[in-house]
Amino acid sequence: MPSAKTQPARGMRDFLPEDVRKREYVIGVIKEVYERYGFEPLETPAAENIETLMGKYGEEGNQLIYKILKRGVHEGTGEADLALRYDLTVPLARVVAEYRDKLPKFFKRYQIQPVWRADRPARGRYREFYQCDVDMLGSRSMIVEAEIISASTEALRKLGFTDFVVRLNHRKVLTGILDAAGIAPEKHGAALIALDKLDKIGTEGVLREFAEREVLTGDGGKDLLALFQTNTDNDQTLARLEQFIGGHVIGLEGLNDLREIIGYVSSSVVRIDPSLARGLSYYTGAIMEIQVQDLAGSLAGGGRYDNLVGMFLGQDIPACGFSLGLERIIVVMSERDMFPVNLLRSPAEVMVAVWRDGAAEALEIAAELRRQSVRTDVYPDRDTKLGTQISYAAKRGIPFVAFIGEDERGKGLVVLKNLKTGVQEILDRGEVAHVVMSEVRNV
Amino acid sequence: MPSAKTQPARGMRDFLPEDVRKREYVIGVIKEVYERYGFEPLETPAAENIETLMGKYGEEGNQLIYKILKRGVHEGTGEADLALRYDLTVPLARVVAEYRDKLPKFFKRYQIQPVWRADRPARGRYREFYQCDVDMLGSRSMIVEAEIISASTEALRKLGFTDFVVRLNHRKVLTGILDAAGIAPEKHGAALIALDKLDKIGTEGVLREFAEREVLTGDGGKDLLALFQTNTDNDQTLARLEQFIGGHVIGLEGLNDLREIIGYVSSSVVRIDPSLARGLSYYTGAIMEIQVQDLAGSLAGGGRYDNLVGMFLGQDIPACGFSLGLERIIVVMSERDMFPVNLLRSPAEVMVAVWRDGAAEALEIAAELRRQSVRTDVYPDRDTKLGTQISYAAKRGIPFVAFIGEDERGKGLVVLKNLKTGVQEILDRGEVAHVVMSEVRNV
Repeated sequence: MPSAKTQPARGMRDFLPEDVRKREYVIGVIKEVYERYGFEPLETPAAENIETLMGKYGEEGNQLIYKILKRGVHEGTGEADLALRYDLTVPLARVVAEYRDKLPKFFKRYQIQPVWRADRPARGRYREFYQCDVDMLGSRSMIVEAEIISASTEALRKLGFTDFVVRLNHRKVLTGILDAAGIAPEKHGAALIALDKLDKIGTEGVLREFAEREVLTGDGGKDLLALFQTNTDNDQTLARLEQFIGGHVIGLEGLNDLREIIGYVSSSVVRIDPSLARGLSYYTGAIMEIQVQDLAGSLAGGGRYDNLVGMFLGQDIPACGFSLGLERIIVVMSERDMFPVNLLRSPAEVMVAVWRDGAAEALEIAAELRRQSVRTDVYPDRDTKLGTQISYAAKRGIPFVAFIGEDERGKGLVVLKNLKTGVQEILDRGEVAHVVMSEVRNV
Repeated sequence: MPSAKTQPARGMRDFLPEDVRKREYVIGVIKEVYERYGFEPLETPAAENIETLMGKYGEEGNQLIYKILKRGVHEGTGEADLALRYDLTVPLARVVAEYRDKLPKFFKRYQIQPVWRADRPARGRYREFYQCDVDMLGSRSMIVEAEIISASTEALRKLGFTDFVVRLNHRKVLTGILDAAGIAPEKHGAALIALDKLDKIGTEGVLREFAEREVLTGDGGKDLLALFQTNTDNDQTLARLEQFIGGHVIGLEGLNDLREIIGYVSSSVVRIDPSLARGLSYYTGAIMEIQVQDLAGSLAGGGRYDNLVGMFLGQDIPACGFSLGLERIIVVMSERDMFPVNLLRSPAEVMVAVWRDGAAEALEIAAELRRQSVRTDVYPDRDTKLGTQISYAAKRGIPFVAFIGEDERGKGLVVLKNLKTGVQEILDRGEVAHVVMSEVRNV
């Protein structure tokens, strides 16, 4: 009887076979695409020295980091010296500092591993969840942004997503816009936090927050929001932004970057959206998010962060990356029924039934089938009636049962029963694999 | 400059791309074999509620479990409410209790995930390492032992191991032997601990321990050791054991099990070895280990444990499993150079070079190649000289560089340089993928 004692820890999940298969399918597709773009896999330990993580994620982050008691003396002192990985970016920064001489000048890595956060669990928010990061380090070129966008969107397309949009913006453009709107530099943070909610709270809501936070009052706010809301093509948006920010040098650098990026990627997918703000702590250049209609949050997000990766090295390393939200991707794919049918396969393609004195022969038949790549189960209990064994296979969704009836013994013959049609035929042992495969895999 | 601050936590490892590829190769082979035997994947969280783990691994185990501070209040009280997974068996037992109704009568699962132990790191002993478990629950049939042995040995064979031996013994046979040798039941534990070292300390050493621990003195010890040391075929060993244990009922049950198992599996691989004892805490029936010549420990170990899995359910569930030592397998495969050559592949099959005004065209060429499944890198910096770009590709082991020289622009032509031969040829854009693939993959 299930009880609290047998549930997984709160906010964490067990993945039964069908769940694992779904997850492995999604991860497999993403990996294949990233590899095709020249990215290489990296894995880091689940636990890091506690100093490696503390102070890297702000005050809230510090609280959400799972801390591990020091070995040996732990029960006594309560001292923690390790902590669970909170994201994949800080470990990347550590790895780059540690192995600088071994890594190529341009380090293109993907990393797909779980992270842990001591957050309050909610629908779709877990304490253990996978991140799926792709980053390229070592270049300030906009080709990097283009490559990262192309790889991530191709991964989504391969998974079957067709209706997504890549929202693209730039930190420097935001700075230019806010300066041009007459917002004091010390109010930029507050302005961006309000702007980030435009989708949720609308124009009125943002204007109210502007007023409350003394960011901007009067018509200035309305002009600014008009800039964000108009839905135009990328060239028009760029022209409008350029007009708005005027001669703002930093802002113009950002606009040039955006122009270069959309020159490299399919403009039908990428939409320049000046209202995109993102969590702003560490981005320094282009920022992007991928969204689909029926999901409130984003499927993926990323951008350029030229000052972060060098934190352990004491020397800046330009970087740009994208993080695909594996858990969200799986939620949407499940809701939309996007998983391939053959993924939810039965545990075996054929089950060999056993009988009192024929277990060795049954195992031989199974060995032959497996040698021919047929996924084969063997019923373990010799004293179970054949009918019960067949029912078990049917219940498990195994399409065929192979057995040797009294008449077939010693003749090299096998009975193969198709559980879908109910038809059973007597075959030479050597034919079984072929018949099963041609039915199950259309081979 | 690398420093303690950028190293992974002690006893844990970063896996750079080449390491990840090796690990994924081994895991992939093992999974494919287990799936072909009808086993299904299971994954459980890295952290469990601390009560789930404490008390399940003995006093030493309790000390080696990594404990995680309770969320929120943690710094103050030092209270731990979670702990890192210590093995894959206790989580399996919990899962079986929690999802009993959803799981089939015979639950065949494999699980390949990291575990954590706060042990003293040593050569080949890590604090984070993978376990690779395969278990079948729900049946007492020896067909299960046979299937587990077949699957595990096939996985090793597929990885290229040819020289391994499966040592097979049985808890009940050991009981029979020790009883027949006149060793008091309360001395069985001490006797088995000494016997387990036969390989290392030899006959003399075991006899000395027998004397020290007052297990057995005089000729009894010598007779017993003679029983273990003689190297005979399985039938002779069985006969000798039967003679030794006489009418011991429990012992005879064990011998019957062994006889049944070797009737099901290839006897050339399995050797009945009465000196095999293994960590004895929870095994109840057959026990086995896989060894190769040049490794002191075993590559894999397992056995039947009919009383363990039911601990959360309050009802026994028969079970038998094998655990492959992933880290050891990788060590031996590396030392013996057993990894396929094409595994240690370059990060891409071709690199597209860029030039000042041709980045968009370079990215188009890359997109075409990737559409044709060629793993393609793009040099990111437009202002780098072609020679430097080519040197970079060569250094990274990328076999081809594609670029467009001044003469080729606007003509749909591409120069493809083979970095191994130094030969460069001018091709139609559409031909590049074919030429690269036929050279790199022999397609």
